[in-house]
Amino acid sequence: MAKPKFGVVDTTFSRINLGDIALDELRKFGFRAIRITVPGIKDLPVSAKKLIEEEGCDIVITLGWVGGTQKDLLSYLVLSVGLVMVQLMTNRHVIDVTVHEDEAESDKELMKLAENRVREHVENAVKLMTYPKQLIREAGTGQRQGSEDAGPLMR
Amino acid sequence: MAKPKFGVVDTTFSRINLGDIALDELRKFGFRAIRITVPGIKDLPVSAKKLIEEEGCDIVITLGWVGGTQKDLLSYLVLSVGLVMVQLMTNRHVIDVTVHEDEAESDKELMKLAENRVREHVENAVKLMTYPKQLIREAGTGQRQGSEDAGPLMR
Amino acid sequence: MAKPKFGVVDTTFSRINLGDIALDELRKFGFRAIRITVPGIKDLPVSAKKLIEEEGCDIVITLGWVGGTQKDLLSYLVLSVGLVMVQLMTNRHVIDVTVHEDEAESDKELMKLAENRVREHVENAVKLMTYPKQLIREAGTGQRQGSEDAGPLMR
Amino acid sequence: MAKPKFGVVDTTFSRINLGDIALDELRKFGFRAIRITVPGIKDLPVSAKKLIEEEGCDIVITLGWVGGTQKDLLSYLVLSVGLVMVQLMTNRHVIDVTVHEDEAESDKELMKLAENRVREHVENAVKLMTYPKQLIREAGTGQRQGSEDAGPLMR
Amino acid sequence: MAKPKFGVVDTTFSRINLGDIALDELRKFGFRAIRITVPGIKDLPVSAKKLIEEEGCDIVITLGWVGGTQKDLLSYLVLSVGLVMVQLMTNRHVIDVTVHEDEAESDKELMKLAENRVREHVENAVKLMTYPKQLIREAGTGQRQGSEDAGPLMR
Repeated sequence: MAKPKFGVVDTTFSRINLGDIALDELRKFGFRAIRITVPGIKDLPVSAKKLIEEEGCDIVITLGWVGGTQKDLLSYLVLSVGLVMVQLMTNRHVIDVTVHEDEAESDKELMKLAENRVREHVENAVKLMTYPKQLIREAGTGQRQGSEDAGPLMR
Repeated sequence: MAKPKFGVVDTTFSRINLGDIALDELRKFGFRAIRITVPGIKDLPVSAKKLIEEEGCDIVITLGWVGGTQKDLLSYLVLSVGLVMVQLMTNRHVIDVTVHEDEAESDKELMKLAENRVREHVENAVKLMTYPKQLIREAGTGQRQGSEDAGPLMR
Repeated sequence: MAKPKFGVVDTTFSRINLGDIALDELRKFGFRAIRITVPGIKDLPVSAKKLIEEEGCDIVITLGWVGGTQKDLLSYLVLSVGLVMVQLMTNRHVIDVTVHEDEAESDKELMKLAENRVREHVENAVKLMTYPKQLIREAGTGQRQGSEDAGPLMR
Repeated sequence: MAKPKFGVVDTTFSRINLGDIALDELRKFGFRAIRITVPGIKDLPVSAKKLIEEEGCDIVITLGWVGGTQKDLLSYLVLSVGLVMVQLMTNRHVIDVTVHEDEAESDKELMKLAENRVREHVENAVKLMTYPKQLIREAGTGQRQGSEDAGPLMR
Repeated sequence: MAKPKFGVVDTTFSRINLGDIALDELRKFGFRAIRITVPGIKDLPVSAKKLIEEEGCDIVITLGWVGGTQKDLLSYLVLSVGLVMVQLMTNRHVIDVTVHEDEAESDKELMKLAENRVREHVENAVKLMTYPKQLIREAGTGQRQGSEDAGPLMR
């Protein structure tokens, strides 16, 4: 089987270089990616679609950074609906990694959370492309990306 | 008539292995299914569409687990809109089973509710595929999946 | 002109057999309908589309029952968006009749409201199919389905 | 150039005959229109699409009346999304005129606002169809339909 | 490579002539644009699509002005969803510049913010069309359009 082709899109709006982290993590698994950067999260859906349709990517990882206001939350909703549409129009997965500026108490904590989330979502994307049965083994185990796993509910 | 082909998709985010329950219930009715697991609920719509279009499923049961925050509720909205789009693009039913983490008072109660909901929705999917007229007989009877039926309003 | 072909979809979730009321009202106008029943309101859009595309219905009446929580309201939003999509994909009207569980003070009142709403919407569907000019005569008259008409604003 | 073909859709739900006002205003500009009336605002999108695709209208003016509850606001959202979809599916403008029941202090004021809004939006539709450069001249001038113009911000 | 073709759409609703600012900024980069003006923000999506499909624009900059009420916020949501759809239907970027009337303390401040935002977004559009690698260099640097950049988070 040919190696899967990964796409990565991040933003200049983000306060952390999420694209670099994603590329670094992909490298650990032996993969490279086509990477593009766009201004903000509302530019992500069409970028993902172009990577799939014009660059032949098999999967795209989008990296969004969302502010803390109500307007930012609306933009996040629009991003999410757009990414679902992209997937349904292309029959390809788009792994949506979003960091919300108000998720952590300090900058340091936010950086750690963001890095972990990107790396764990990249791992998910790699599993989807190379060994999807591994995900069945993790079904219902309460995986969380960027913070501690919730774990399975105990009987 | 050929046996209907069922698809089941669940998530690693879920804290209960909902996919196993669905497969078990389908087995009771004499059906098997193609099962895949994806990271989270926003990955469900494209997975359902791929099961229908690439694997030939006649119906798909998606099993989602939703956290209790406002952002989780937005993701649930996006999931729901996406599943409607999948159905309209394929003219196939997708039975959306969602468990909200904040629905029950205790873990034990949540596990019971989740299991019942999955089993009752699987039964609905089986009826839709094999004997849809049975559903007409239940029209207006206040069926609920996972908790006690509301029942019909009494004159 | 050939008789128009009506479709009716209701749910097992509903606490009133709205489908029977719709069929009864259509009968008064001399029409029959293809009727199907599905579990809940999120199953209505694809059902309406299938009635149009696979059964040749010229118009579909969907009968939804909505609970009183915020999640129910989200499902209602998803239903409404889905029904608009069905209409735009088929160029056919879908008349959406929704009863909200929290609309009335008592069960008795709710049953009366629901029955009237179904019957008046069926009448609208019949007018759309057989004598649409009648609707122009009623333009701006403040028609309400299920409760008293608001009437036109008086100069 | 052939005369543009206008479509007008209003509702029986409205408490003012907005369609008559639109037709009267179009007449002042020397235009006629195909007019249809439907029960409520959720019936407007498919009606506009049918006027464009089945009746050959170049532009459609939809006239909606929206109640004051949260459910009404959701219907308004659905209407708006639907009208955007119609425009993107047909590459034709649909001018959406909406009157919200709670916009004015008195019936009299509401009637005046509604009439002005319809007439000014009809004028916009006529400009779009016949002399779109006039709109460039009004760019950034704070036009409002139905109430006093906000005007341009002053340096 | 042929020069990219820019489209600009603004509104008569806006209280600032945002289109003129965009054209001025494009001129500094040596580009001209096709400019159209429409009544309000809900007219922007189809206008952008027509500029791409009927006028051959490679990218469109839409310039919206949004009032401060809840209804205005809903219209902004509809605009945003519509612009995502345009991009996914055409595989072209649409740069959405929105000024919210309630963003600044004074008219003077709002005018400055609006002008800066338009100019910086035009610069983004130019980079996307001529030298997209420059955006990769700015990835994660916390760029903001119209106000001071947030900058990258410091370790």
